[in-house]
Amino acid sequence: MPELRKDPIVGRWVIIALERAKRPHDFKHQDQALVDTGACPFCEGNEEKTPPEIIAYRDRGARPNGPGWRVRVVPNKFPALKIEGSLNKRGEGIYDKMVGVGAHEVIIESPRHHVSMAELTDHNIQEILWVYRDRLVDLKKDNRLVHGMLFKNVGSAAGASLEHTHSQLIVTPIVPISVWEEMTGGLEFYNYRGRCIYCDIIQQELATESRIVLDTDYFTAFCPYAARFPFETWILPKTHSSHYENIPKPAVEDLGVTLKTVLSKLETALDSPPYNYIIHTAPFDHQELPHYHWHIEIIPRLTKVAGFEWGSGFYINPMPPEDAARFLRDA
Amino acid sequence: MPELRKDPIVGRWVIIALERAKRPHDFKHQDQALVDTGACPFCEGNEEKTPPEIIAYRDRGARPNGPGWRVRVVPNKFPALKIEGSLNKRGEGIYDKMVGVGAHEVIIESPRHHVSMAELTDHNIQEILWVYRDRLVDLKKDNRLVHGMLFKNVGSAAGASLEHTHSQLIVTPIVPISVWEEMTGGLEFYNYRGRCIYCDIIQQELATESRIVLDTDYFTAFCPYAARFPFETWILPKTHSSHYENIPKPAVEDLGVTLKTVLSKLETALDSPPYNYIIHTAPFDHQELPHYHWHIEIIPRLTKVAGFEWGSGFYINPMPPEDAARFLRDA
Repeated sequence: MPELRKDPIVGRWVIIALERAKRPHDFKHQDQALVDTGACPFCEGNEEKTPPEIIAYRDRGARPNGPGWRVRVVPNKFPALKIEGSLNKRGEGIYDKMVGVGAHEVIIESPRHHVSMAELTDHNIQEILWVYRDRLVDLKKDNRLVHGMLFKNVGSAAGASLEHTHSQLIVTPIVPISVWEEMTGGLEFYNYRGRCIYCDIIQQELATESRIVLDTDYFTAFCPYAARFPFETWILPKTHSSHYENIPKPAVEDLGVTLKTVLSKLETALDSPPYNYIIHTAPFDHQELPHYHWHIEIIPRLTKVAGFEWGSGFYINPMPPEDAARFLRDA
Repeated sequence: MPELRKDPIVGRWVIIALERAKRPHDFKHQDQALVDTGACPFCEGNEEKTPPEIIAYRDRGARPNGPGWRVRVVPNKFPALKIEGSLNKRGEGIYDKMVGVGAHEVIIESPRHHVSMAELTDHNIQEILWVYRDRLVDLKKDNRLVHGMLFKNVGSAAGASLEHTHSQLIVTPIVPISVWEEMTGGLEFYNYRGRCIYCDIIQQELATESRIVLDTDYFTAFCPYAARFPFETWILPKTHSSHYENIPKPAVEDLGVTLKTVLSKLETALDSPPYNYIIHTAPFDHQELPHYHWHIEIIPRLTKVAGFEWGSGFYINPMPPEDAARFLRDA
């Protein structure tokens, strides 16, 4: 029989179709190839093809917007939000609106045309994780903005339009509804039990073992109990922390290896699938929160979201997370 | 500048990228063709290729599971939920689960191999709308089940696997989270103002006119103020009603024409795009609710949902709903 499982944080139920369980190679993905027309704008030497850089980690003596960088952050050429102007919040009858003020930046992860983050050196990945932090710390100073979401789209089916390995940051003047729902669920649990629900989940996952993909000194990676998607994997810091930007240096080093290992496993098990990862972190306008726990959600894009899922928010997952975790551990 | 708009019902913000505004033909969809291997299991004469029918509207004298039907409902061959058994609700440490009890049915909308619902006669579409009602009325009697969601997937990108025009019904033992959120938002508004928020929206849309696609005696179709997707269109009954299954006969006749007209407009404007429609209706275990209003949401699947949307619940819509409505009115 299929099983209904509830995400304990936001209360979302999913249908785990146990009898539909498949092997990894049953999830064939037919992704359109991404063709970089002309020279790739993210490759070293083509710096003039992007808007001027916001920050770059450069070799000594290398000039801004020229070669000699290791990780480079530029504004998105087609930004969803713009940094200038005031919010001008107002109503329109029953409706509310404001000007789309915010930041939309691109983190170019390597000067060379690597397609996969898993090909990068440990040091390179650590520098990406540091630049994520540096951008959040900088944008936090702008009191019009309240939340920063770091994410990565890999492959056309996951919404990428360029193949050169990169991630993005969108900083918004309101807290996104899904972070808000996580915080609300976390607060409810905290008020009742006095503990962080994510910390409790980590403890139970480590005790149960069946959904663990990787366990390191600082992080644990597992397929969540109520996974919406086949091979959905979360990475959580084992020490409670609500804000990504407060990550200590040893944890950055550990996270670099953890992320690279988990992505390599996904690429091996699923033949380099399209995927997204998203860093969920607490809003800027809060100090350290006892009820929220930052984390990374990795979502391979192997199945299509159909009418039922859109309408109901109820996901049908044909791959039990216990099976997915076993395949990933063995990959 | 882009504009942030808030859905007044569930509180979800969207980014309307005004400067990215496009014309309908800029939304090219590259959909995989659906190939029915062998004879189509939904065509008249192939009744043995589906599980035995649950109900069919048949010509006088025609036998069950043989030819002579006009609309036919069968169990899904690969159901997400199964009708047998008890829910057996239980915990697993911090987690909750229950057996996946429910119904998963397919409504075969025509005995002939039509690909588009808009090709069907008015009478045929009315019979589809009646069979939707009949199935809800029947399944409501099962006290393990609390909600029925009727939906349609058209085209591979929208999750369809067969091209013969059909829709589906999934009846669940819990209220789907998105209906729950709509009901919660509707109740909050009702408690504060004593009115249905959907009724207020209809009134404002009819007064504003700019987002109206079609206005008939019983229904109004419009592109919602905080549309998540290009050409997203909602159809609402103009008289307050929380449950689809209570629809009066003249409204069924009107809805048949309204739905056909709106789908034809979408097909003309967007060159037969993949789309989903979903009927949002109140749970079974409630009487008529003053704060909830059943409706149909039509979502053309023209853009890819990327990491930011998944992570944030914050949608970026490159087509202002006012422009989309104008294109659809003119189509």
